Amino acid sequence: MVDIIHRIGIKSSSAKVYKALSTVDGLAHWWTDEVKGDEQTGGKIKFTFRTKTGEVLGDMVMEVLVINPEKAVHWRCLEGPEEWVGTNITFDFSQQGDQTIIIFGHRNWREAVEFTAHCSMKWAVFLLSLREYVETGKGKPSPDDLKIDNWN
Amino acid sequence: MVDIIHRIGIKSSSAKVYKALSTVDGLAHWWTDEVKGDEQTGGKIKFTFRTKTGEVLGDMVMEVLVINPEKAVHWRCLEGPEEWVGTNITFDFSQQGDQTIIIFGHRNWREAVEFTAHCSMKWAVFLLSLREYVETGKGKPSPDDLKIDNWN
Repeated sequence: MVDIIHRIGIKSSSAKVYKALSTVDGLAHWWTDEVKGDEQTGGKIKFTFRTKTGEVLGDMVMEVLVINPEKAVHWRCLEGPEEWVGTNITFDFSQQGDQTIIIFGHRNWREAVEFTAHCSMKWAVFLLSLREYVETGKGKPSPDDLKIDNWN
Repeated sequence: MVDIIHRIGIKSSSAKVYKALSTVDGLAHWWTDEVKGDEQTGGKIKFTFRTKTGEVLGDMVMEVLVINPEKAVHWRCLEGPEEWVGTNITFDFSQQGDQTIIIFGHRNWREAVEFTAHCSMKWAVFLLSLREYVETGKGKPSPDDLKIDNWN
């Protein structure tokens, strides 16, 4: 199995980071602005990605596996790109001095393909958006996300 | 073995991207501003990273394994952080429409550790610096690189 992993520090309390990762409102400020669903454990959250002109690029449905305000938010991908279905997305965090450190994982890809490399870079950009949102109040969720290549 | 892989597109000819990846001058504009050595196949290139106040954070020595103007620059790490020694760093690129697409790899880590997650995020930031340099003439090489966590 193949994992994408990233480490990022956010100058903020872990409580604020947790809120950005675990609530529909928080998620809509840094990943994609179109989020709905049940944010509780066992709930399903739907994320819709569109172009700036409104065309749907894709939908993802995540099942909430773990929400622990002290340390973790974990999801399983139920619907989305074929390569994503069944993978896990994990945010594990801890406060260290003036930063909350997140270990991000997009885990259990069946194999490393070119799309994995695209998603790895794209996740890095969304983690920078998460940081910007938590630190300044304004992130860059889709469709205002930074485009990284000719795929998105 | 564990690989970090990223995909990025740069609005430029592949010749210009190749120059940024294969010459001492090019590398000094996006990774670290202190680069010296022999950029030919079989040569060794030394990269020094410092704080803004001049303290050395670390040195890396890369052996040039492949330089192919049409498609690739590959290195092997000879000296650097313990986890890096013996790993391979690969830039494989092709022009696709108005972009040059790079598949970046930092390959053959012995295991995925927290430092791998840090380096994955940090490489993403340096690839954005590479893109900025090639597209605008000005990147963010160390020590002006974007800091991503409490490690660097």
